[in-house]
Amino acid sequence: YTCSPMPVWQERLIVLVFGIDPGSTATGFAAVRREKGRFSLIEAGVIRTRSKDPIPHRLHTIHQGLVDALVRIEPDCVAIESIFQHRSSESALRLGQARGVALLAAAQAGLEVSPYNPSTVKKSVGCHGRAGKQELARIVARLLALEKPLAADASDAAAIAITHIGHQALARLAAR
Amino acid sequence: YTCSPMPVWQERLIVLVFGIDPGSTATGFAAVRREKGRFSLIEAGVIRTRSKDPIPHRLHTIHQGLVDALVRIEPDCVAIESIFQHRSSESALRLGQARGVALLAAAQAGLEVSPYNPSTVKKSVGCHGRAGKQELARIVARLLALEKPLAADASDAAAIAITHIGHQALARLAAR
Repeated sequence: YTCSPMPVWQERLIVLVFGIDPGSTATGFAAVRREKGRFSLIEAGVIRTRSKDPIPHRLHTIHQGLVDALVRIEPDCVAIESIFQHRSSESALRLGQARGVALLAAAQAGLEVSPYNPSTVKKSVGCHGRAGKQELARIVARLLALEKPLAADASDAAAIAITHIGHQALARLAAR
Repeated sequence: YTCSPMPVWQERLIVLVFGIDPGSTATGFAAVRREKGRFSLIEAGVIRTRSKDPIPHRLHTIHQGLVDALVRIEPDCVAIESIFQHRSSESALRLGQARGVALLAAAQAGLEVSPYNPSTVKKSVGCHGRAGKQELARIVARLLALEKPLAADASDAAAIAITHIGHQALARLAAR
């Protein structure tokens, strides 16, 4: 007698992914659950900072906002936007600072982080590569069965979370 | 009768500056005190991370190392290297992530942060602009009356701290 693992097709994939779209002015986050093939939004928000405040203070606000959300939501993992190409080195450094405190918040919560670049995210939700923010927000709202689109940064974070769920499902199929 | 402030020339400038040279592989720090016109090194070190570890884990190591040092040393303020120009956007993002968690550690300790760019740092310690790491390390060791140079990253952090002390002294003279 051997105890065989539950076949993949009987397994119910229940996972809660916390997506982050980091930025020094606005950091979007969204917790998306997939259960029985449907996506549902648990919580989404945007952490905004004031440009007149010193950078360390603004990074503190972003970090604390994410730490609070991770404690409250208790997701299974984190997905985050990866490197934007073709940026100036100055804007890349600014984005890096916000991304750094976001990755730190995930590490402090003991969660694994998966990065996805913007074009993968767009493709994963079924958007063409040149789709604008508004179009992406509409598609994300439809996937999450929301009555109206989320704020742009929260919507991007939700798209990143959905992308991670999709890639996990693909990885499972590939592992059969 | 009015209580006049102590004249500048009688004031003893006692300040403990915590310099940081952030980097994803090696983050240098150095606490430098100025008392009666002389510099002395209180503590210096390099927080190293392993390139095989995930980035969030490495950022956690850098942040925790700096938080520990700030709690132990209790400096008055923080000075940090500012933006490097002419980097690729990818290396700027990587540097930004390390710099972000360093700035966060300072903000969490309630300390003000002053940024200095590399050429200002070199000029402030009396180095010419094209001076290499070794020459800078030798000059820093001489200023701190050390028998031998510090590790490169710790030496850079000490140079940043010395730069901040110098600029504070200049600001005081200008305010007379």
